[in-house]
Amino acid sequence: MSKYESNLDLCFSALGDPTRRVILQRLARGEASVSELAEPHEMALPSFMEHLKKLEAANLVTSKKKGRTRICALAPNAFAPAKDWLTEQSDIWEGRLNRFDDYIKNLMQERNK
Amino acid sequence: MSKYESNLDLCFSALGDPTRRVILQRLARGEASVSELAEPHEMALPSFMEHLKKLEAANLVTSKKKGRTRICALAPNAFAPAKDWLTEQSDIWEGRLNRFDDYIKNLMQERNK
Repeated sequence: MSKYESNLDLCFSALGDPTRRVILQRLARGEASVSELAEPHEMALPSFMEHLKKLEAANLVTSKKKGRTRICALAPNAFAPAKDWLTEQSDIWEGRLNRFDDYIKNLMQERNK
Repeated sequence: MSKYESNLDLCFSALGDPTRRVILQRLARGEASVSELAEPHEMALPSFMEHLKKLEAANLVTSKKKGRTRICALAPNAFAPAKDWLTEQSDIWEGRLNRFDDYIKNLMQERNK
């Protein structure tokens, strides 16, 4: 499997969990420490860290140490691969529907001649 | 959890698998029977049907019986919920970056006065 495909696997799978989506929604508003991110979730820290690990593995989140605190941020263009894949499929699908519409219109015009 | 959130869970999780993405890519080009869809995948039929089940549960695919054949199609607006969620987060993130750019520009102008 290509690197692009395996990244999409990790990325979509990471997005398929409500806790991880809440973390991303928070980080879209700006960087935050691990403890700030963990605070709204009633969850033991090791479980919470597992969620962060999955987001980092999927290239959605980056983190760096600042003294004793770990600061997380949204990765640059985090959502681009997933959005691009979805847009490509929607465009193919809608293109097909539009061509079908045109075909029906032409058929009707021919009949009414 | 709201119905919208649990649908996003199912939808993103369904997208996180290469076999299921290939099925969706095929269906974006038009409807197909289960056997047509299964053909390129070296997989026992029950395992393949599990993938289809997950796609249906996530409201990405619909299917109907036509005689002895089951025909699958992309669900209407299949990708809209996932695309909308990703676009919303990107917009918030980019808006934040733009505001930061403006802030820096203003700061530089003030200094150069």
